[in-house]
Amino acid sequence: MELETSPLALPFPDMPQIAGVTARIARAGYKDWGRCDLTLVELAEGTAVAGVLTQSKCASPEVELCRAHLSQGKARALIVNAGNSNAFTGDRGRAAAIEMIEIVAAHLGCPGEQVFSSSTGVIGVPLPRDKSVAGLQAVFEATPCSWEEAANAIGTTDTFPKGATARAVVGAKTVTLAAIIKGSGMIAPDMATMLGYIFTDAAVEPAFLQQLLAASNADTFSCITVDSDTSTSDTVLAFATGKAANAPLESFDSPGADAFAAALHDVCRQLAQLVVRDGEGAQKFITIDVTGAVSDESARWIGLAIANSPLVKTAIAGEDANWGRVVMAVGKAGEPADRDRLSIGFGGTWCAKEGLPLADYDEAPVAAHLKGREVDIAVDLGLGTGRATVWTCDLTHGYISINADYRS
Amino acid sequence: MELETSPLALPFPDMPQIAGVTARIARAGYKDWGRCDLTLVELAEGTAVAGVLTQSKCASPEVELCRAHLSQGKARALIVNAGNSNAFTGDRGRAAAIEMIEIVAAHLGCPGEQVFSSSTGVIGVPLPRDKSVAGLQAVFEATPCSWEEAANAIGTTDTFPKGATARAVVGAKTVTLAAIIKGSGMIAPDMATMLGYIFTDAAVEPAFLQQLLAASNADTFSCITVDSDTSTSDTVLAFATGKAANAPLESFDSPGADAFAAALHDVCRQLAQLVVRDGEGAQKFITIDVTGAVSDESARWIGLAIANSPLVKTAIAGEDANWGRVVMAVGKAGEPADRDRLSIGFGGTWCAKEGLPLADYDEAPVAAHLKGREVDIAVDLGLGTGRATVWTCDLTHGYISINADYRS
Repeated sequence: MELETSPLALPFPDMPQIAGVTARIARAGYKDWGRCDLTLVELAEGTAVAGVLTQSKCASPEVELCRAHLSQGKARALIVNAGNSNAFTGDRGRAAAIEMIEIVAAHLGCPGEQVFSSSTGVIGVPLPRDKSVAGLQAVFEATPCSWEEAANAIGTTDTFPKGATARAVVGAKTVTLAAIIKGSGMIAPDMATMLGYIFTDAAVEPAFLQQLLAASNADTFSCITVDSDTSTSDTVLAFATGKAANAPLESFDSPGADAFAAALHDVCRQLAQLVVRDGEGAQKFITIDVTGAVSDESARWIGLAIANSPLVKTAIAGEDANWGRVVMAVGKAGEPADRDRLSIGFGGTWCAKEGLPLADYDEAPVAAHLKGREVDIAVDLGLGTGRATVWTCDLTHGYISINADYRS
Repeated sequence: MELETSPLALPFPDMPQIAGVTARIARAGYKDWGRCDLTLVELAEGTAVAGVLTQSKCASPEVELCRAHLSQGKARALIVNAGNSNAFTGDRGRAAAIEMIEIVAAHLGCPGEQVFSSSTGVIGVPLPRDKSVAGLQAVFEATPCSWEEAANAIGTTDTFPKGATARAVVGAKTVTLAAIIKGSGMIAPDMATMLGYIFTDAAVEPAFLQQLLAASNADTFSCITVDSDTSTSDTVLAFATGKAANAPLESFDSPGADAFAAALHDVCRQLAQLVVRDGEGAQKFITIDVTGAVSDESARWIGLAIANSPLVKTAIAGEDANWGRVVMAVGKAGEPADRDRLSIGFGGTWCAKEGLPLADYDEAPVAAHLKGREVDIAVDLGLGTGRATVWTCDLTHGYISINADYRS
């Protein structure tokens, strides 16, 4: 099936080179497609690494190996296989993942623990070692590629390449971040994420990079959902080569740490939103602002209950200001809520306030808002100061077509 | 929109009269439809009542009033309004519900606490009192109706009337149960249920009836899901008129209590499965057997995670033996699971055992099974003795059409 580009797609940004980072792509042929599906990113010696990984109880061997390798904090290479997730493949899958890591480690002359890998695609088929070994030989000989080429090579059902960039002034140096991400279905990260890779020339201690990435994850990747289904392979890794030669960032006491943290957060938010914009079948980008909850975490769960509700998502697809379905979703979230304090609005217009439909509610501006590509839902619980923003997309015939009408 | 009858529909059963129970229907005109939408069931004096109600934090006033009235254990009447849920309507909605109860109580000469009511339909519009008052006058004058007519009158987007019946020998008496239910979307009862009503001529003490209903609910209504969305109005009530004149059932020590409990459970299971068979857009009835979990409750949550996964439901719709999506759903359930002990099968054929795809896996019988209307999924966790069975339906274009393409 040829997928049409999402109507919510954004153009690929101008992405800067990051000193110490070289990406190459090749055709391993994991699926019967005429495109590159193996990506190798070489990283300068001394590159710091941090990561957040899926909480799935059925994680892939690649995720397990990333988790183990993260503890030593350094990276020399990243491998990404597209078309086969290698998840639920037992010892054979694990051996295939380890073999790739060892081949790359031997090629670069580094310990295997400094090689990180991800695989994405069908579950339950061990990575074919003949294809991955031949693919690695091809990628070793390839010329360096652009960010956009790498973003395309890591995709599966993605309909457009997704990248983000930011800069921050750290001490006397300007540091740069460049990042790519893939994902469009099986998207419901819970304290975890998609395949996303962030590269920076900043010098950052691994422990502090991990702290910053986890903090950014909490209100970016952990606040998106396409279909409530959490992948077995979700991975976000951040690599800091140190080539900007700033005084290494060790904590928020380091000069420029706040600026770097803000830039990292900005990149994570951009990446997370891009994943939603490529949600399978998505026609509308939905922002759900929850305020007045008993805590931020409670607000996030309520936002995700709304974002994952098939009835809310189909109402938005139908451009129907059915705020009753939002009430339903708040009611089922399992978080503190008081029907008689609840207010709900669309696109800046309140439909109901404190448990009552507004007597003078004018549906016209709401109906006009719902016809657009970007839909805003506001929910105020009237209980406290907890707040969260969650992003999702609508549920359309396109989602059913992608996932049911065609065999995977 | 005219909805086609679900391909999973079952014929309405031959349903016996229950002594002490008289149903009547009328047209209140809650929606612009030419059908009866107000049901009144009159119950003999001394009828015992039990109920399980939605756990939604945004429950309708009818649900709140049922909860309050249940404490005194007796019922003389049941009112059901179809086409308007009266949920999230504040004081006006609550006043409209109370007025209906008071009119019926005055008509029957009973306390208002012995009148139970439910409303189902759109959220956020107060029940129009002119229509409900006129509707009650009409229903008082109506001739008694059949169970099938009552089952049709309580429906909304239901495509076929749903009833179930059972008999049990209690002491020297045969007691009879007859029950009706409605529901097809916004179905994800969590310790709660749909609009379902069970009538029996058995004599049962209210506290014991409540105990039996709650126990039956746990592995019937609480084990079904259509779309993971929990209604604001879910209600199941059981009424026991005592007209069979058996020695009243007070506990499991009473002669015949086991038989009655089994009959009640059987009726609950039939009703729950009928709701799934009328799931919005359903083309396949899916039974998910989870075994080997650490507890029955853990098995139920894992079963519901699979049943609520859009990717599993669309795979079944596409007749795709994509057991990797089942792995994914187990992994995200948040319950104890060990990838390397997990086994998954369809229609009696194992696809994967203990964390590995079967080497000699033959997809042919699985593919044939998936072409049928009834699909069985087996998941064994290999951890303990916990088990549960969960019922759901597939996710199809029909669901999207019903909920997005047409304005509610």
